[in-house]
Amino acid sequence: MSGRPAPATRASRGEELAARFDEVRSATCRLAEPLSAEDCAAQSMPEASPIGWQLAHTTWFFETFLLAQAIPGHRPFHPQYGFLFNSYYNAIGERVARPLRGRMTRPGLEEILEYRRHVDAQVRALLERADEAFLLRHGPVLELGWNHEQQHQELMLTDLKHLFSLNPLEPAYRAGPHPGAATAPAARFLRREGGLHSIGHAGTGFAFDHEAPRHRVYTHPFEIASRPVTNGEFLRFVEEGGYESPDPWLSDGWDWVVAERIRAPAYWKREDGAWRIFTLRGTRELDLDEPVAHVSYYEADAYARWVGARLPREDEWELAASEVPVDGNFVESGALHPRPVAVAAGGELAAPAGLFGDVWEWTQSPYVAYPGFSASPGALGEYNGKFMSNRMVLRGGSCVSPRSHLRASYRNFFAPGARWQFSGFRLARDV
Amino acid sequence: MSGRPAPATRASRGEELAARFDEVRSATCRLAEPLSAEDCAAQSMPEASPIGWQLAHTTWFFETFLLAQAIPGHRPFHPQYGFLFNSYYNAIGERVARPLRGRMTRPGLEEILEYRRHVDAQVRALLERADEAFLLRHGPVLELGWNHEQQHQELMLTDLKHLFSLNPLEPAYRAGPHPGAATAPAARFLRREGGLHSIGHAGTGFAFDHEAPRHRVYTHPFEIASRPVTNGEFLRFVEEGGYESPDPWLSDGWDWVVAERIRAPAYWKREDGAWRIFTLRGTRELDLDEPVAHVSYYEADAYARWVGARLPREDEWELAASEVPVDGNFVESGALHPRPVAVAAGGELAAPAGLFGDVWEWTQSPYVAYPGFSASPGALGEYNGKFMSNRMVLRGGSCVSPRSHLRASYRNFFAPGARWQFSGFRLARDV
Amino acid sequence: MSGRPAPATRASRGEELAARFDEVRSATCRLAEPLSAEDCAAQSMPEASPIGWQLAHTTWFFETFLLAQAIPGHRPFHPQYGFLFNSYYNAIGERVARPLRGRMTRPGLEEILEYRRHVDAQVRALLERADEAFLLRHGPVLELGWNHEQQHQELMLTDLKHLFSLNPLEPAYRAGPHPGAATAPAARFLRREGGLHSIGHAGTGFAFDHEAPRHRVYTHPFEIASRPVTNGEFLRFVEEGGYESPDPWLSDGWDWVVAERIRAPAYWKREDGAWRIFTLRGTRELDLDEPVAHVSYYEADAYARWVGARLPREDEWELAASEVPVDGNFVESGALHPRPVAVAAGGELAAPAGLFGDVWEWTQSPYVAYPGFSASPGALGEYNGKFMSNRMVLRGGSCVSPRSHLRASYRNFFAPGARWQFSGFRLARDV
Amino acid sequence: MSGRPAPATRASRGEELAARFDEVRSATCRLAEPLSAEDCAAQSMPEASPIGWQLAHTTWFFETFLLAQAIPGHRPFHPQYGFLFNSYYNAIGERVARPLRGRMTRPGLEEILEYRRHVDAQVRALLERADEAFLLRHGPVLELGWNHEQQHQELMLTDLKHLFSLNPLEPAYRAGPHPGAATAPAARFLRREGGLHSIGHAGTGFAFDHEAPRHRVYTHPFEIASRPVTNGEFLRFVEEGGYESPDPWLSDGWDWVVAERIRAPAYWKREDGAWRIFTLRGTRELDLDEPVAHVSYYEADAYARWVGARLPREDEWELAASEVPVDGNFVESGALHPRPVAVAAGGELAAPAGLFGDVWEWTQSPYVAYPGFSASPGALGEYNGKFMSNRMVLRGGSCVSPRSHLRASYRNFFAPGARWQFSGFRLARDV
Repeated sequence: MSGRPAPATRASRGEELAARFDEVRSATCRLAEPLSAEDCAAQSMPEASPIGWQLAHTTWFFETFLLAQAIPGHRPFHPQYGFLFNSYYNAIGERVARPLRGRMTRPGLEEILEYRRHVDAQVRALLERADEAFLLRHGPVLELGWNHEQQHQELMLTDLKHLFSLNPLEPAYRAGPHPGAATAPAARFLRREGGLHSIGHAGTGFAFDHEAPRHRVYTHPFEIASRPVTNGEFLRFVEEGGYESPDPWLSDGWDWVVAERIRAPAYWKREDGAWRIFTLRGTRELDLDEPVAHVSYYEADAYARWVGARLPREDEWELAASEVPVDGNFVESGALHPRPVAVAAGGELAAPAGLFGDVWEWTQSPYVAYPGFSASPGALGEYNGKFMSNRMVLRGGSCVSPRSHLRASYRNFFAPGARWQFSGFRLARDV
Repeated sequence: MSGRPAPATRASRGEELAARFDEVRSATCRLAEPLSAEDCAAQSMPEASPIGWQLAHTTWFFETFLLAQAIPGHRPFHPQYGFLFNSYYNAIGERVARPLRGRMTRPGLEEILEYRRHVDAQVRALLERADEAFLLRHGPVLELGWNHEQQHQELMLTDLKHLFSLNPLEPAYRAGPHPGAATAPAARFLRREGGLHSIGHAGTGFAFDHEAPRHRVYTHPFEIASRPVTNGEFLRFVEEGGYESPDPWLSDGWDWVVAERIRAPAYWKREDGAWRIFTLRGTRELDLDEPVAHVSYYEADAYARWVGARLPREDEWELAASEVPVDGNFVESGALHPRPVAVAAGGELAAPAGLFGDVWEWTQSPYVAYPGFSASPGALGEYNGKFMSNRMVLRGGSCVSPRSHLRASYRNFFAPGARWQFSGFRLARDV
Repeated sequence: MSGRPAPATRASRGEELAARFDEVRSATCRLAEPLSAEDCAAQSMPEASPIGWQLAHTTWFFETFLLAQAIPGHRPFHPQYGFLFNSYYNAIGERVARPLRGRMTRPGLEEILEYRRHVDAQVRALLERADEAFLLRHGPVLELGWNHEQQHQELMLTDLKHLFSLNPLEPAYRAGPHPGAATAPAARFLRREGGLHSIGHAGTGFAFDHEAPRHRVYTHPFEIASRPVTNGEFLRFVEEGGYESPDPWLSDGWDWVVAERIRAPAYWKREDGAWRIFTLRGTRELDLDEPVAHVSYYEADAYARWVGARLPREDEWELAASEVPVDGNFVESGALHPRPVAVAAGGELAAPAGLFGDVWEWTQSPYVAYPGFSASPGALGEYNGKFMSNRMVLRGGSCVSPRSHLRASYRNFFAPGARWQFSGFRLARDV
Repeated sequence: MSGRPAPATRASRGEELAARFDEVRSATCRLAEPLSAEDCAAQSMPEASPIGWQLAHTTWFFETFLLAQAIPGHRPFHPQYGFLFNSYYNAIGERVARPLRGRMTRPGLEEILEYRRHVDAQVRALLERADEAFLLRHGPVLELGWNHEQQHQELMLTDLKHLFSLNPLEPAYRAGPHPGAATAPAARFLRREGGLHSIGHAGTGFAFDHEAPRHRVYTHPFEIASRPVTNGEFLRFVEEGGYESPDPWLSDGWDWVVAERIRAPAYWKREDGAWRIFTLRGTRELDLDEPVAHVSYYEADAYARWVGARLPREDEWELAASEVPVDGNFVESGALHPRPVAVAAGGELAAPAGLFGDVWEWTQSPYVAYPGFSASPGALGEYNGKFMSNRMVLRGGSCVSPRSHLRASYRNFFAPGARWQFSGFRLARDV
């Protein structure tokens, strides 16, 4: 009868949120630590954003959707930051055109870090005195905020990799040798039965709006590869003329190959007869056992067709992923690069391996709303639903994703020609 | 008295094919009859092709896939026509870059018509002496050929409409007044139950490869509008600022609106305070009861969001369409323009109306392969599968489609920003 | 002492103008005679115009600047032709954007020829009853009109050549073999003294506004080549890497070479180890003795620098040209292609040869106003003065210029990257 | 044995060069002092370069053309800086494509400043032990080096102004109020007689290759305005529709107005009914008496035509400038903005005022070689001669030019559409 765990729970819930908040926010800053002010200001292409902009934008999110809602008479840190650091949230106000972000040299890195500290302190102060009503009302946006920030943690690394790759000095983001090599096991096709299944987010934890609702889907029997395609396998495609004939390509894909003069995955280059690869630790020899990364959907699809297979659909992928834990090579490993799938004692893989981490896996599913989907109301609803055209779904996370950010139902999406993410793929087949 | 129906059947099958061939081929020529040599040579935009090119390309199809296969030692009509009049069939050889087709003034219309007569005569000669083996082997390509040609019949009219719309003289393709006006009935949402259904081509008649295989799909309960959205309904969107705020738009859609300065459906223009519309019979006042046409996927999607609804998925559309006959306003009506849905006596519509003809209806389904799809082998397989990225499915045919070309399983597809087809839409809702 | 030659003179002046008018107008039609309706409708690039458009535009000139001024209550042939066939004459009204001209399939060739006949008849009727006052007032515009038309005669042939060059069938505008080959004499540099000279139009005959006023210019001593650079000479530049290093190129020129992937003069192509050239009589072997044609200013300038010389200035060219008659290979020869400079008996050339006809010669003079220049008033003044930026002067006329159109003071001008004209060059040097 | 001035002279000549070198080098660094690392890394448009790049490029010039020539076995500071910081000097090696300079975040500002110190120390060490032979051989390149650096001093300020203008925060490069206003005197036309004159560099001091040789030119009588056109005068053009009709514009100019949607000089904006202007001290009200700045050649030419005048030719400008001392509002004044021409006691100006400083003055002369011009040999010769196409000459220097950099014969040149320099103009007329 005694008990009364509620206050304790509330306190611990507030503390827990504060701890989680701190963890994510400080992780972001740690990622930026090796970088100079110049590194943080540059924008290498319209699709990328300056690191500094991302440091501020993730902060603006908490200021706008938490502080401004929860603190009566809240005064923004700077009257124009709402304009400068808004991204797609069109409902909130005009924003700086994306391709111009790299020209905003003010505020500088120091002011942006000051902005972070200022907002962080205000959020923490709120959480210290948060009661149940507060947590009920504002907890979800806090959680959305750090999940949003985790997405930017990954983007910061991929945007930076792209930026550094353009520099003739080939700078390394992190020093030190790559983790030791390993041998990828032979790939097998694993058969899975069809039938009525459910996919989408099920549990009680956080998920983005587009992972819901969990819903039934009829899946046909299929086979899925035991591991992603490797550099060595993809190299055959490169060297046997894969990029030289339109045959295996989608029509849009071939136009892209011709227009962009694509000849290999991004960051590969042939020097003195050897293939080398630019990584976040600088340039080194191509490791044939690693999963291939930085390929576009077009390349993944063309390779699959070339070997007589196809890419998995997202329901197939999710079914396979529901068999295994969310385990793999994430940003926490420090590798910052895909690693060969570990060989079990017996050699061949019986269960699909490498589904989480290493490389995002392109599926052949265009990014669309699940049946019954409804976007979150207001500005937050612009988060995902706005992009439901001309994008393909990728699944599983990469070597630069935070582990806690991922789950089997997680849906990532990019345009089919994008390849600055750690995007790879595995094969599937009809049976 | 055993029968011997076989020869008779063979004869009649050959004759039947010959009759059908003649019918399609002559229909194509009739469409070009009102046009000058200049009209047939021009290309109004990269997505369109000159009429003359289409007259030749559809002929090249029969020459390449039928004559060259069936006639030993076949000599092509002209050694370079294979190069000039190939379209996407990359497996067959280099082709003239699409945007340059309008600069090929030779061969001229007269030579192209001669080419048609030459190939037609050869095809007919083949069919006259065709035996069972021949029909078994070459019948399918003949059938594919005229279905392909029917697609070009529609494109010839929509490409020409676009070309004429750019001419300050506003030429009319066909003279005479528009068919009399009518009043569109009020739209209702019709509920359909979910469950496991099958979609895709079922029967024994012709279908394109991408309509197969017929396969099970789990459909959630939904509501579908009893008729397409009308000009009058869409006008409200135009006049109440639909094009002026990013709110209802997909991100790509809003970029398109801004970049192309879109303010209304294609072919609408505001003159002296009144909305007018360019048609194949010249410019006239906007009829508010007609289904809206020449809108992009982005516009259809934005309108649906604006009124709190959505577009149907292609399985939903096909389920609804399987209830009704393939009936409506097709090219054979001669209207060459959408007409208001006819009001039944009672007024309201109990079954969905206007599904076939009038306007192609955008669905919210991206164009992808059905489970188990395999493209036809060789060059013919480049027909549809090559386009399975960045396209959305449209269903039902239009006022310039030949009636015999359509069925409930028919899938059309265009890029989401395309709007030179007679593309409209109807609404759907989750329940 | 009676005499009274005036009426006779007036009559003969009117007749003379009518004869000249007829001659120019019919020459234009003769140029179009070998062409199909399709040939006359197409536009191969934004800088070119359809032949049909030019047939109409030159007619519109007389209708607008002569008929509409001289005939009270003049009714235009068609109310929208003023809009369709206006070119740069911005003062007259909105015009069809240049790159869209190839999409105007109506009016067709037949209607355009009817338009020509209609306007010609009206002009002739005017001239038949023209009195002195009329001739005084309207004679100059008539003269301007046919000089304008002669410019279009040349453009019709160069625009058509460009159009045909894009056609894989490589059509010939005129049948028959090329005129027999000849050997170009060795080139010499001829010295001319400097000092105060006058250049610009001097006589009483027709000249364009920008050839006036005749004015003094101080010319420094110089040397000018005895003939234009030949294909054979330019071939050395091509084969010794002229296009592969930025050294001899202007900065803008090298950007152009890289962006356009220029490797040789326009219409040259290397096939099976031999250089061939596309001409108005089809494709044939490259004749090394002909003056090189279809080079841009950038190419001419780079070649000159590569051999340690320069291009002449326009005053230098005009001084040299004032020594020789306007004689050479013009459109009237029927060659439609440059011919080797004829060798005089002795072999070497003492006076500069080939200054007129064959190829327009790039000078190193940007196209600017002469001191004291004033544009003609009104719409006619938009003729030349509007282009006095980013253009270089060419002199001397080409193998497709009408002989009567040219004189020593004649100034042509094109953007430095243009090369669809018969543009070549000769060398000069400082002394 | 008195005398022995030679060593003293040598010493003093070496010391003098060292002092001048130090002065220019330190002035450059002072200009960068108010800037952050981010400000120095960004590139606002392809035509501009990052400040940091310019700090390094000007240093690379001395390393490449002085140290590497003068020091046997010279080792470059960094093996790739030659690649990174080369600009147009194609003869020296591949260079980073200009539009990508803003993506080179390494080396950072600190390393670049270290590079400067390193090279400066080496240059000073050379000069300390320089003998006559050394000075004879290397003195000219040293002098060219600092003149080159002075050009970049000006570009650093104009590039930065452009960069800051894009930032919604409208940062000020320098704090503090603008210098007090003044009233511009009425403009008069001053007549100058024609005849044979000489222009080009005459004296013994430094001049760029393209200012030579001094040569005779025949100048026609002309009138030149007593001062540059003011903001107030240009505002009339803006407000009376100057940008709304093609009439006063060159054809290329009107295309530019339409394509770029130009409505006023750069950095002008209309807010709440008042015209404001962005300056290096932030945004303030438009001062009607200041010379108009940041107009393109097209705007200058259109204005001149609109008022029935023209721009001066460069020989006319140079003749007028030879009457007055090189005096005016230069970077040393600290104003960093044009100032109204000072009114002499009497009011009207008898001699042309404001020729030097304030604003560069567009002339109607395209930038071409003077008769007898020969580019310096080798890589240094790429300095100016490479740009002799599509550029117009500007004269007189601006409010951000170093005074010691200018002279009457100084020729600046930009594309006719450029307007991020302090470019204005004065009127001229034929007489």
